Amino acid sequence: MKKTTFIEAMDVWRTPERIVLVTSVGADGLPHVITVGWKMRTCFNPVMFAIAIGHDRYMHKCISESQEFVIAVPGSDLAEESLICGKQGEKVDRFEKCGLEKLAAYSIKSPLIKNCLANFECKLANQIETGDHTLFVGEVVSAWVNEKSDKNLLIVGDEDGYDVLAEDGPYRVGVVK
Amino acid sequence: MKKTTFIEAMDVWRTPERIVLVTSVGADGLPHVITVGWKMRTCFNPVMFAIAIGHDRYMHKCISESQEFVIAVPGSDLAEESLICGKQGEKVDRFEKCGLEKLAAYSIKSPLIKNCLANFECKLANQIETGDHTLFVGEVVSAWVNEKSDKNLLIVGDEDGYDVLAEDGPYRVGVVK
Repeated sequence: MKKTTFIEAMDVWRTPERIVLVTSVGADGLPHVITVGWKMRTCFNPVMFAIAIGHDRYMHKCISESQEFVIAVPGSDLAEESLICGKQGEKVDRFEKCGLEKLAAYSIKSPLIKNCLANFECKLANQIETGDHTLFVGEVVSAWVNEKSDKNLLIVGDEDGYDVLAEDGPYRVGVVK
Repeated sequence: MKKTTFIEAMDVWRTPERIVLVTSVGADGLPHVITVGWKMRTCFNPVMFAIAIGHDRYMHKCISESQEFVIAVPGSDLAEESLICGKQGEKVDRFEKCGLEKLAAYSIKSPLIKNCLANFECKLANQIETGDHTLFVGEVVSAWVNEKSDKNLLIVGDEDGYDVLAEDGPYRVGVVK
């Protein structure tokens, strides 16, 4: 065991990481979507998820104001789209650009994404500061699944065992073979 | 898209999930270790991780009191051991039972695990309640890597693409093929 930099140690551990799309609504009533890798479950009952969102992201403002978000689970057909929605600062309608079809949620205003494998409607339950990100904790109030099944989309490394579907700089997105 | 139960929707999304071993120390000075699936990165700079620990776990008491923990990353040779350390309420020395070799950390009292691929020493930076779990946020103060490389150990589903290495009830542990 060798003491090392965080970056070298993280290199051993960062993949595979499932990614999700997160939707919410701005103060203008318009929906927004980003790709999130830093997410986890945090409670059995009621079911809760936490997501970490950078302070400088527009999504941070959307969730802070609307107090809600949707976690949408992309499959293999949304690889390029997930990379696009992960980009910072783009002033475009990403739903339109990526062909993400919005559906009305049951309990909240944030849209579901029809092309995803599952959607979880979350009401903000708690939040905490963690350096340059805020950790938003959402309680799941409604859940949806798609009729078609598919593999979960992942951030993958350069080791074997994955079908790499899209790449952008350090990010490689794919599925288990 | 069909409205459904949380369980059915989660079934689409819960794998693969990397697992980690978390160590900390009790008020008696003795180290403790558990397996954790609910963990994520939460900050670029400084580097921080969050882990969700059930209120009724002894590890919850250890971290609350010691204000520190280690995240140790298991490889394929710790599949059975990860299932054992995931069990609740066992009053045994899991390090000894599982052959987990302890090493002194650099910055904190919680031990590193020599048989793991990487170790991250974390000082508690913040915490928040999320229903039946507490979310502990730790700032990484030292990092370690093993000379031997291996695949990350995962909770896997029953789909193709994985070598399943150990099973216990609903938990299947393996690596990407």
